[in-house]
Amino acid sequence: MQVNKEQITQWFQGLQDRICASLETLDGEGTFREDQWQRPQGGGGRSRVILGKHIEKGGVNWSAVHGPLPEKISQSLGLEKTDFFATGVSIVLHPRNPHMPIIHMNVRYFETGDDTWWFGGGIDLTPHYVVPEDAQFFHQSLKDVCDKHDENYHPRFKKWADDYFFIKHRKETRGVGGIFFDQLKATEEHTKEDRWKFVQDVGESFIPIYLELAARNMSKDYQQPHLDWQRVRRGRYVEFNLVWDRGTKFGLDTDGRTESILMSMPPRAEWIYDHQVEPGSQEEFTQNNLHKDVDWLSYS
Amino acid sequence: MQVNKEQITQWFQGLQDRICASLETLDGEGTFREDQWQRPQGGGGRSRVILGKHIEKGGVNWSAVHGPLPEKISQSLGLEKTDFFATGVSIVLHPRNPHMPIIHMNVRYFETGDDTWWFGGGIDLTPHYVVPEDAQFFHQSLKDVCDKHDENYHPRFKKWADDYFFIKHRKETRGVGGIFFDQLKATEEHTKEDRWKFVQDVGESFIPIYLELAARNMSKDYQQPHLDWQRVRRGRYVEFNLVWDRGTKFGLDTDGRTESILMSMPPRAEWIYDHQVEPGSQEEFTQNNLHKDVDWLSYS
Repeated sequence: MQVNKEQITQWFQGLQDRICASLETLDGEGTFREDQWQRPQGGGGRSRVILGKHIEKGGVNWSAVHGPLPEKISQSLGLEKTDFFATGVSIVLHPRNPHMPIIHMNVRYFETGDDTWWFGGGIDLTPHYVVPEDAQFFHQSLKDVCDKHDENYHPRFKKWADDYFFIKHRKETRGVGGIFFDQLKATEEHTKEDRWKFVQDVGESFIPIYLELAARNMSKDYQQPHLDWQRVRRGRYVEFNLVWDRGTKFGLDTDGRTESILMSMPPRAEWIYDHQVEPGSQEEFTQNNLHKDVDWLSYS
Repeated sequence: MQVNKEQITQWFQGLQDRICASLETLDGEGTFREDQWQRPQGGGGRSRVILGKHIEKGGVNWSAVHGPLPEKISQSLGLEKTDFFATGVSIVLHPRNPHMPIIHMNVRYFETGDDTWWFGGGIDLTPHYVVPEDAQFFHQSLKDVCDKHDENYHPRFKKWADDYFFIKHRKETRGVGGIFFDQLKATEEHTKEDRWKFVQDVGESFIPIYLELAARNMSKDYQQPHLDWQRVRRGRYVEFNLVWDRGTKFGLDTDGRTESILMSMPPRAEWIYDHQVEPGSQEEFTQNNLHKDVDWLSYS
């Protein structure tokens, strides 16, 4: 028997619980505040936010919504007028320490009234300061998850992330990328069960990856200039999410819960006109590495 | 003889000069830095930015660009494939003092290769703290400018501003509104000369309005909580500009000069999850007044 939407929904809820518990342990001080919300047209969610010692602001959202598919979305997906069901977990963590990267993960499941279904998701990393060894570790971890399921996944989904997490008007990537995938349906090679196991593995990979990055970076020293640069990079994060991110746009266009959608916004951001990095600085190194098609796996 | 694009261009340049000179005098410390830029497809501009004592960050842009009209724009305007010419002045000023409002002005002229032309523009006010007397003064000043030209202008353009400067996903206006107008062409009542004189008067009204608002508010005392609230309101300003503002979107979509387009971004902004104002506070009063159709002229 195929996995059904109730099982997926429940598993995602459990994933939210496990991730929140781990993040509270990691932070040591902050605890998640939960807001349960209902969607007037059907379904709802649990938004959880932490304002912690290490995680300055973090959101871990779970939702399961249903109802008539908004026309704007059905059109853009090339679907007929139909009902839909969607469930998923979304995470954005803004660390206090500028040497710790911003991380984002999303895993989701979508189906319509007429048996169309697919999985989507991704994880990507936005370091304020690019550390090649960390980017290498991050991509290797994602490759390991992908390779368990299909050796074509990683090259395809890595490129997809490079293309998706791109701030067109800055001609720079949001960070060092990761993986992104959408509309994973059943094929000759992959049953629904296969796809679902892959998405579960992506979801489960989040905590070990983040704990390792935290162990490496969360206690590094930093001074005011690092915080200044962190706010500039956070400004770029805002630009990507509000101008280019399809999920954010759909949410705002379709009367989603604004506070849950914009949980991804950083606590503080800054815009400096024509900001220039100093030649030879760590900031310049970071800026020079914010482009597509960097082969982080074999960086040396 | 009708006013032509060379005359309009030159007058806008002079307006930029006069406004910059007045703002430097007002600020007393900051001076404008100028960046001249060329647009690869034709034309260019002068971006001017001030980082001052009273004006924490302000941009006064002039540009005159031409070339083939990007398809995305011609489609949205319902125009055939054509060349275009556009010139204008755009201003956004972010004051340091939270009791001083953010102000925005734009005046612009557009024409195509086949004799289509129009004027557009507007001024709107975004107080961090709504002061009804200031909103009244602001709207009265704009009404006076409008009434000199057409008694129908003010009611129409005031409503247009209410509808345009609206943050849909927050269900709140960006501020207390002002006037907004677009595609002002020649009609039986108005020649091109008429329209142009109106746009000139709007441009000239900026400095006296801003000086009066500065005299009233720029030296008011403020403490940390006022600065905190200022950053929250600036976050909403960012949301409007990046999610809803057509000018910003067109600019970013059509490879405009990013630094000039995003000069409107505030120096520092903040996002607080589910921010709540205190009952009875000045912040609550402001929030309660950020909606459409407030008759500020007869506020009492």
